[in-house]
Amino acid sequence: MADELGSWNDGKAKSAITGFVRSVTEEGDLFVSAADRVAAFDNDGTLWVEQPLPPQFGFLIETWMNEVKQNPALAKEQPYKALIEKDPQFFAALQVQVPDAVSAVMQAAGRSWEGTAPEDFDAQVREWLARSKQPKFGRRYDRLVYKPMLELFGYLRANDFRVFVCSGGGRDFMRVFAEDAWGIHKENVIGTAADYEYKDGKLLRANKPLGGVALGPGKPEHIFAQTGRMPLLAGGNGDVDIEMLAAARFALLIEHDDGEREVAYTSGADKALSAAKQHGWTVVSMKDDWAAIF
Amino acid sequence: MADELGSWNDGKAKSAITGFVRSVTEEGDLFVSAADRVAAFDNDGTLWVEQPLPPQFGFLIETWMNEVKQNPALAKEQPYKALIEKDPQFFAALQVQVPDAVSAVMQAAGRSWEGTAPEDFDAQVREWLARSKQPKFGRRYDRLVYKPMLELFGYLRANDFRVFVCSGGGRDFMRVFAEDAWGIHKENVIGTAADYEYKDGKLLRANKPLGGVALGPGKPEHIFAQTGRMPLLAGGNGDVDIEMLAAARFALLIEHDDGEREVAYTSGADKALSAAKQHGWTVVSMKDDWAAIF
Repeated sequence: MADELGSWNDGKAKSAITGFVRSVTEEGDLFVSAADRVAAFDNDGTLWVEQPLPPQFGFLIETWMNEVKQNPALAKEQPYKALIEKDPQFFAALQVQVPDAVSAVMQAAGRSWEGTAPEDFDAQVREWLARSKQPKFGRRYDRLVYKPMLELFGYLRANDFRVFVCSGGGRDFMRVFAEDAWGIHKENVIGTAADYEYKDGKLLRANKPLGGVALGPGKPEHIFAQTGRMPLLAGGNGDVDIEMLAAARFALLIEHDDGEREVAYTSGADKALSAAKQHGWTVVSMKDDWAAIF
Repeated sequence: MADELGSWNDGKAKSAITGFVRSVTEEGDLFVSAADRVAAFDNDGTLWVEQPLPPQFGFLIETWMNEVKQNPALAKEQPYKALIEKDPQFFAALQVQVPDAVSAVMQAAGRSWEGTAPEDFDAQVREWLARSKQPKFGRRYDRLVYKPMLELFGYLRANDFRVFVCSGGGRDFMRVFAEDAWGIHKENVIGTAADYEYKDGKLLRANKPLGGVALGPGKPEHIFAQTGRMPLLAGGNGDVDIEMLAAARFALLIEHDDGEREVAYTSGADKALSAAKQHGWTVVSMKDDWAAIF
């Protein structure tokens, strides 16, 4: 078992994980049937680098800046205005889910791909992923998935857990690379999503703002809708993961404290770090608990 | 392989199924990667007996009749009025999805379980299932799953397909018995569903009519939302399955032609039977193709 977590240093975090998994898989009072072994993980900052911006923002910003070039009148509206003015207040509002900011982004995302077929959206994401590089590491975003988390996925699967990813990011965006990068099927990827309409034998994106943002309480809501269960084990790294972590029997909070090998920051995670202390969640120090990051 | 389909008589339907599965799993031009092997099946009339009414209607009718007893004013409104008057027109309208009839049912379903926790809803369904009997066969509905279909699930899984059920019926209703009766996890059950809200550490049914009915075009829409794919293989038995069957590479249509061992009827399946001819779908005669029904 320890071999499966080879990039994890021995310590409190690793022991807590293996201890919990043993407790629910071995006969005894804490045993949990395999059917109930659902694990759910956030993506941005939990599985891959989210600084300076969650990667999907790069894809969205590029798309929207191109739209403004085609149609300069958009520059007066959000979220285009904030992008042009590089308005930090708008992005801060987005991070704490101020309804107007979220709604502007959901409307723009709805508009940009209205009428798009899934295979065309996928091709756009693939093309963007292939040529985009994370600025600090100079590598494709989907090659910057944390190795210890991939090992954790394998370890959980070996113990008959079913691993899901639940992100505020786009469900269909993540599904493009989920199978290659994470080794999990598309149906195990949960996120904010567009509606599609099936008409005349074709499935196309509907003309609607995106709804049902999978952040905060939206995470347990989406996990239940997709899986019919609350997670037995959950992992996250930010304030928007608190409800998902609280809904799980065992929770991991990834702490970004390795400025050398990754990026050191606590912004957007202050409440989560307090909640971890309060609830006894397992805090994973990237610096101390991970022998390798990528 | 043939053993896994022991309740299927040798014949065109069985050969078509095994021929298709071989073609996509063996090396060659038609090979399909395991990731893309998604199978989707309707429930009512495809997996279990739907006559004289889809079983879930029994559960709904009982609930709503009790509500009318508590609150007689409801008797003037739909769907309660139709239940009391045993109005065949209302039920006919429901079957062909007349919007007013569907909307009345979705509103009533939303109202009846508003604020209910998943475990309480599950307990109600379990209690009802345990004491309800299909009138012709005198057995619990969840013991009346067609044996050949369960064998087909096993055969598909043995060939690295992932099996989903997609029904116009309630997602959460089906998830109560899916794991025992069908051997598939809750997350592989897709259907019409209520919204839930996570608040103060609890997940409860929202105060909203049910939306997104998984019938007709709603089936491929729901299957894509849940799985990120269109089905490679699909099975259904009625007009409301046509779009799902059309979206699949290989389609099965179950024909209810065995009045002795099951129930013989074509109502609600006339268009589907024509579509099967037109598209070359494989029609499964319960009478001729199945050596055993249950």
